[in-house]
Amino acid sequence: MNIPPNHPRRESLLIRERLVEGFKKGVVAPEGLIAHGRGECFDYLLGERTHDFALKAARVAVAHMLLAKHPVISVNGNTAALVPREIVELAETVGAKIEVNLFYRTREREEAVARQLLEHGAVEVLGVGEDASATIPELFSERRRVSPRGILIADVVLVPLEDGDRTEALRRMGKTVIAVDLNPLSRTARAASVTIVDNIVRAIPLMIKEAKQLKSMEKARLEEMIRSYDNNAVLQEALRAILERLRELSSSQLLINP
Amino acid sequence: MNIPPNHPRRESLLIRERLVEGFKKGVVAPEGLIAHGRGECFDYLLGERTHDFALKAARVAVAHMLLAKHPVISVNGNTAALVPREIVELAETVGAKIEVNLFYRTREREEAVARQLLEHGAVEVLGVGEDASATIPELFSERRRVSPRGILIADVVLVPLEDGDRTEALRRMGKTVIAVDLNPLSRTARAASVTIVDNIVRAIPLMIKEAKQLKSMEKARLEEMIRSYDNNAVLQEALRAILERLRELSSSQLLINP
Repeated sequence: MNIPPNHPRRESLLIRERLVEGFKKGVVAPEGLIAHGRGECFDYLLGERTHDFALKAARVAVAHMLLAKHPVISVNGNTAALVPREIVELAETVGAKIEVNLFYRTREREEAVARQLLEHGAVEVLGVGEDASATIPELFSERRRVSPRGILIADVVLVPLEDGDRTEALRRMGKTVIAVDLNPLSRTARAASVTIVDNIVRAIPLMIKEAKQLKSMEKARLEEMIRSYDNNAVLQEALRAILERLRELSSSQLLINP
Repeated sequence: MNIPPNHPRRESLLIRERLVEGFKKGVVAPEGLIAHGRGECFDYLLGERTHDFALKAARVAVAHMLLAKHPVISVNGNTAALVPREIVELAETVGAKIEVNLFYRTREREEAVARQLLEHGAVEVLGVGEDASATIPELFSERRRVSPRGILIADVVLVPLEDGDRTEALRRMGKTVIAVDLNPLSRTARAASVTIVDNIVRAIPLMIKEAKQLKSMEKARLEEMIRSYDNNAVLQEALRAILERLRELSSSQLLINP
């Protein structure tokens, strides 16, 4: 593919290429490419940068993972294509298990996602084939399958790029759910316990950095951080940022094109 | 693919499936799936309905096409996958030629797009293989190729889902460019002469309806419609609609999740 070097959306197009690569390896579903585009749009509305509200959420998310008995990182195709090495590093740093969890589940894709993670240093990947033998109540078809050693018994689940139905179902099971979602209005964003409104290519490296810092912090301080966190306030801040950016863009539009 | 019948985004997911179908037939590029997702997000921000500003633009767009000497409809993979029959009907109604014009041009995909259009009733499809022998100045690589019987000599070009670079290049060639673009802030939207800020699955049927009505209108009235049209005002209205909808969504969010 030839992306002109002076193309104004070059960086975003290069991330696309990474996803298309993942697609060609069977890691990403065609629907995953569409979902990525949806995210691109919200990222554009956020100015393609990490805001304070995302940093705040990422820090509390890491606190949850460090305090958890059974933290699990749920990985779908897009996550595996975009940040495979980072997922493995985060799992190691906070002591979480990694589980494959697909919206459009096929055996081939489960294995492709697991292979991608193993190639990037994962020691164990749950949720593949027979291992995904437990079910989440109230969900339909293949989307309810989880590992009895992973998401089923997890107290804290990180679900980057998750679907609203599953996020809600996990919450009803009493789990703490951490979402990475660029749309602060999505059902996922609203149902999650902690929502990091940021691009996953920035959010996971940020979580790794935070995890390294918070690891040495005493338990009581982490608990205090969690207690004082308000996810609704974070979502409101994200929304305000989008509204402000749209206003900005609309006034610069007037200048460019009077 | 199993989309639960009660899924709140069911309709949008069904359009996705149509695009994935087109992808499997070789009509849609993987990057086209991502671009669709970007559009989905803006459609969501527009409330997934046709607004007055889109109707106004669609009407003037049709007036341009009816008055043109050489109107051409430029068709990419996504357009061919989503509204092939409608493109053919619109071309017939306004007397326009149809030309294949791909961002990621390969001979296979050119032919797949042409085949899709021919299967849906097109009599002739320009821009395939040797026919795309002319070039648009200032554009790179395969993206500059056009038909000497089509876009090259066109006075009015309808470019649904076009790239900003090409829209600008066509404008510099002195052509009237009609874009269908869900993002009122995109370079395409801003560079076009007439921008229909609406989903293509609603916009093209709307244009057909308008074309049938305006066909019998006298030339002077069509010209008057064009003279009194202000594309910047239309883009501002679209932006205002998005801002309003975000404000609405944010207050309903407060109610749902206090």
